Amino acid sequence: MKLSFSPASPFARKVRIAAIELGLIDKIEFVPATVVPGQPNEEYSKINPLKKLPALILDNGEVIVDSYVIAEYLDDLAGGGKLIPTSGAAKWKVKSDHSLLQGMLDSMLLCRYEKMVRPEPQRWQAWADDHWNRAWNGMARFNKDKDMLARPFDISQIGLVCVLGYADFRFPDCGWRKAYPNLDAFHEKMLTRPSVKISVPPPA
Amino acid sequence: MKLSFSPASPFARKVRIAAIELGLIDKIEFVPATVVPGQPNEEYSKINPLKKLPALILDNGEVIVDSYVIAEYLDDLAGGGKLIPTSGAAKWKVKSDHSLLQGMLDSMLLCRYEKMVRPEPQRWQAWADDHWNRAWNGMARFNKDKDMLARPFDISQIGLVCVLGYADFRFPDCGWRKAYPNLDAFHEKMLTRPSVKISVPPPA
Repeated sequence: MKLSFSPASPFARKVRIAAIELGLIDKIEFVPATVVPGQPNEEYSKINPLKKLPALILDNGEVIVDSYVIAEYLDDLAGGGKLIPTSGAAKWKVKSDHSLLQGMLDSMLLCRYEKMVRPEPQRWQAWADDHWNRAWNGMARFNKDKDMLARPFDISQIGLVCVLGYADFRFPDCGWRKAYPNLDAFHEKMLTRPSVKISVPPPA
Repeated sequence: MKLSFSPASPFARKVRIAAIELGLIDKIEFVPATVVPGQPNEEYSKINPLKKLPALILDNGEVIVDSYVIAEYLDDLAGGGKLIPTSGAAKWKVKSDHSLLQGMLDSMLLCRYEKMVRPEPQRWQAWADDHWNRAWNGMARFNKDKDMLARPFDISQIGLVCVLGYADFRFPDCGWRKAYPNLDAFHEKMLTRPSVKISVPPPA
């Protein structure tokens, strides 16, 4: 199978970490793709009309979109229940936490597009602030969430690693380590995993 | 349990349709909430830092975010496998299709914010066009997808109904019925379901 990919994409990073942790990385061919807001990419839109990374292209040609669904598919391939609990309260906590982190990433990307990609005269500060606050308030919540920070490795923790790595990558002066020391300790611990370490985004 | 809700939210509509179809609607108290891009809502941000609708608040106070995760939770409550296949190729097709539709809705909302909510001098046509094209190309794909249009009722079909209803609600002149006659026929068929009919957004 093939995965459309960019080293800068936090969503592609999530799938890459999951694939390494699940022992499936050698079964995936990574295919670089470039998507830029406001610019068409007709070739890639045929694979994913959303023009988003990553997409998983199966050997039969079928395409699976959405980093979470791809991670769930890989988890299933690896036997199931490895990164996503399949029952009990943990199942819903992990899924809901992951969605919250996914939304935080979406907001951080919107914030980056607003502040760095959109033509300067068309920038709207209230929009950028609104989306930054969503990510920042989300970090505050996880900084207090002892269960999240200590439970066995799962897809929501991968999501949190990708949020923090993206903050370093695109908003290096935001000060999350100082504001959220529990997240800092969590992030340092996660970096001891080869999957997390190897997938840190390159310098912007 | 309680669901934060607005009659204008296509994501809340998805959960409402799912709850009716699963026979769970009477177990949910709908709590109106208003979220506007660029405007803080500190009270609601305490429930969902993403400031998005809907969120499901369980009787023990735990919060589940993301319309898909909420629908999956309700499906589980109703016995499982009712709206989301639990195995086989259909499982991944339905999940991936649903994610594609979710992304189409996200793009349609971004398009609406760009064209109708953002202060006029700060609007960027290329951004609005880019996001509209994602939704429009997605519709083109589903218009050709005979399996999607004919298979038993599932969460991805609910997603498609919500996309088309939102197009009527916010982009009434976009002409999707003429461009995509198979979607038109699908939509008419879906409207014979009381869950779909009762949840059509009010006139904008």
